[in-house]
Amino acid sequence: MNLKKEAGYKAAEYVTDGDILGLGTGSTTHYFIEAVGKRIADEGINVMGIPTSFQSLLLAKQWNIPVTSLEEHDIDLAVDGADEVDKNLNLVKGGGAAHTKEKIVDYSAKQFIVIVDESKYVEEIGNFPVPVEVIPDASRVVIQTLEDMGAECEIRMGERKDGPVITDNGNFVIDAKFEKIESPMHLEIDLNSIPGVVENGIFTQMVDKVIIGTSEGIKEL
Amino acid sequence: MNLKKEAGYKAAEYVTDGDILGLGTGSTTHYFIEAVGKRIADEGINVMGIPTSFQSLLLAKQWNIPVTSLEEHDIDLAVDGADEVDKNLNLVKGGGAAHTKEKIVDYSAKQFIVIVDESKYVEEIGNFPVPVEVIPDASRVVIQTLEDMGAECEIRMGERKDGPVITDNGNFVIDAKFEKIESPMHLEIDLNSIPGVVENGIFTQMVDKVIIGTSEGIKEL
Repeated sequence: MNLKKEAGYKAAEYVTDGDILGLGTGSTTHYFIEAVGKRIADEGINVMGIPTSFQSLLLAKQWNIPVTSLEEHDIDLAVDGADEVDKNLNLVKGGGAAHTKEKIVDYSAKQFIVIVDESKYVEEIGNFPVPVEVIPDASRVVIQTLEDMGAECEIRMGERKDGPVITDNGNFVIDAKFEKIESPMHLEIDLNSIPGVVENGIFTQMVDKVIIGTSEGIKEL
Repeated sequence: MNLKKEAGYKAAEYVTDGDILGLGTGSTTHYFIEAVGKRIADEGINVMGIPTSFQSLLLAKQWNIPVTSLEEHDIDLAVDGADEVDKNLNLVKGGGAAHTKEKIVDYSAKQFIVIVDESKYVEEIGNFPVPVEVIPDASRVVIQTLEDMGAECEIRMGERKDGPVITDNGNFVIDAKFEKIESPMHLEIDLNSIPGVVENGIFTQMVDKVIIGTSEGIKEL
């Protein structure tokens, strides 16, 4: 059983005719976009998507989902994956380096549904390092600040390019591993107050629902 | 024997006091930068580097090589790796997605030395797909043109980010596999004439010397 696919297809059931959709990024959201594309083809529903990355833009085009932008429309429903979700609906995102545009889209949506497989569900977030997108020129001083805050840091390096991973926005990602995240809500705010930080991967606001694909079926929080 | 290291260290012997150096990108150039850093520390030579990527900038800082820019200085000697080199000194570069800045730096240098291990030396270039850096919005139409020219194309995807690899300049890379490259010189020119193409990875001009690390020692072309 493909648990990511189960979660993605379940979320597509919440899409209604006329919706403006926020299209998250990653291997689980992939299936949501596919399922929406099939509903457009099969049922003729009329929706538009606002992509959070080049990846979701290319997928939307592949599945014939018309795309638009936040300049033109508000979002009815955003669906996105996560690298970690805890029982308080705190998230860590950014393993795919797309968390900045994701947070813009997800937080602006009237409804925000998170889709994950059961491996992403944790007691409390923080085992997955917090992705912090930074302006390249600021990376050294941001790392100093993060280390002062107790994090072990590394600039994420590319596998199919030499040197650092570059985000869709032209920036670096620092993966910051904190010993323990006492207050996700405060850390989310504190990280963004560091000059040079564009956005961090902690999401503590706005999650309306989590759909978890488990080996015993779909669970919803 | 580390053939990349042999080649990189050999090239550092060509550096003279007072040089402005073009610092290429990649796993072989890595050793050149290291060797220059050691000459600065051991011999007190006075040189400055112009990096071709975030990677070589970070390496230059690590080895205490002062950095400058093409705005401020001309380059005496550029040293850079390659994905393929043929007997006519044609190169394919861009496996590390850095070929645009590399070509700017390498072609502007008074002397340009290529360093490779023997696995990169080929009868004629073209087995390695030609990296073509493109403005993202132009990727679909550029691919159509490349396919009309006989290439099989794919947008290079990231391993540590979702979706396409983004270059240090914020663009995509299309890896274009041509059946056979009849004239590297003409293909280099033709590819750059496609609107949306920023730079391609064929280098047919300006190479002064190739240093090849082989299991039987250094060879120079």
